[in-house]
Amino acid sequence: MADAQYDPDNIFAKILRGEIPCHRVYEDADTLAFMDVMPQGDGHTLVIPKAPSRGLLDADPAALSALIVSVQKVARAVKAAFQAEGLTLFQFNEPAGGQTVFHLHVHIIPRREGVPLKRHEGGMADNAVLAEHAARIRAALEAEP
Amino acid sequence: MADAQYDPDNIFAKILRGEIPCHRVYEDADTLAFMDVMPQGDGHTLVIPKAPSRGLLDADPAALSALIVSVQKVARAVKAAFQAEGLTLFQFNEPAGGQTVFHLHVHIIPRREGVPLKRHEGGMADNAVLAEHAARIRAALEAEP
Repeated sequence: MADAQYDPDNIFAKILRGEIPCHRVYEDADTLAFMDVMPQGDGHTLVIPKAPSRGLLDADPAALSALIVSVQKVARAVKAAFQAEGLTLFQFNEPAGGQTVFHLHVHIIPRREGVPLKRHEGGMADNAVLAEHAARIRAALEAEP
Repeated sequence: MADAQYDPDNIFAKILRGEIPCHRVYEDADTLAFMDVMPQGDGHTLVIPKAPSRGLLDADPAALSALIVSVQKVARAVKAAFQAEGLTLFQFNEPAGGQTVFHLHVHIIPRREGVPLKRHEGGMADNAVLAEHAARIRAALEAEP
């Protein structure tokens, strides 16, 4: 089975082009991080490369390197901002792998003992709550050494 | 809460030192990949950096870059070897995040529609089965362009 191609009208491509808004927490030349609007827990953040790739397998290795370095940076801030005891990261490829938006992305979810993950389809979070969470993570990023 | 330190007696450190065996699928200067002995699905593979780090947050960015490039390479081979329709990747940090072995690792699980993940604690897989799966992934790596 040949893999499907990159669709430039996916929602994250639209976010990258500024056509639809996001609750941005971090941006550099190669990557963007923003709040998941259907969070599996408070502070659920996504990190994406700016270069178009559908998933892990069709990404340029240089884009992956930039992505993982941003993931580490954002993950540190997410952990600090939500006083998390742990972090769960997901990266899904193709519908069978759990992917629902077809632009490569890494999920970062702050975790605490005894607090299970919510279902991803659990519904849209309140915009004001997401804005406050994003602000909290941006503040943690600014406080980093 | 200060994070716990790296324990050089964790099971993956022992695998890296050759003190205990693994079903190896890939190795280069910076990374090692081998079969998870408690697979959540056939072909469940782990990729680890050789450099000691407990999780994502304490890893050297250069080690992360090498890791993600190996993850992509191994993931391609896992997908081919198991004719997977998708791939699910996990990376867990600290017990609250789902981590059970305290050396940074990335889970790669080949997926097919309608086949749910098994629980990670579902038990040890048969050694002969894991050996055959590892051989299948190594063959796919050798067949890569």
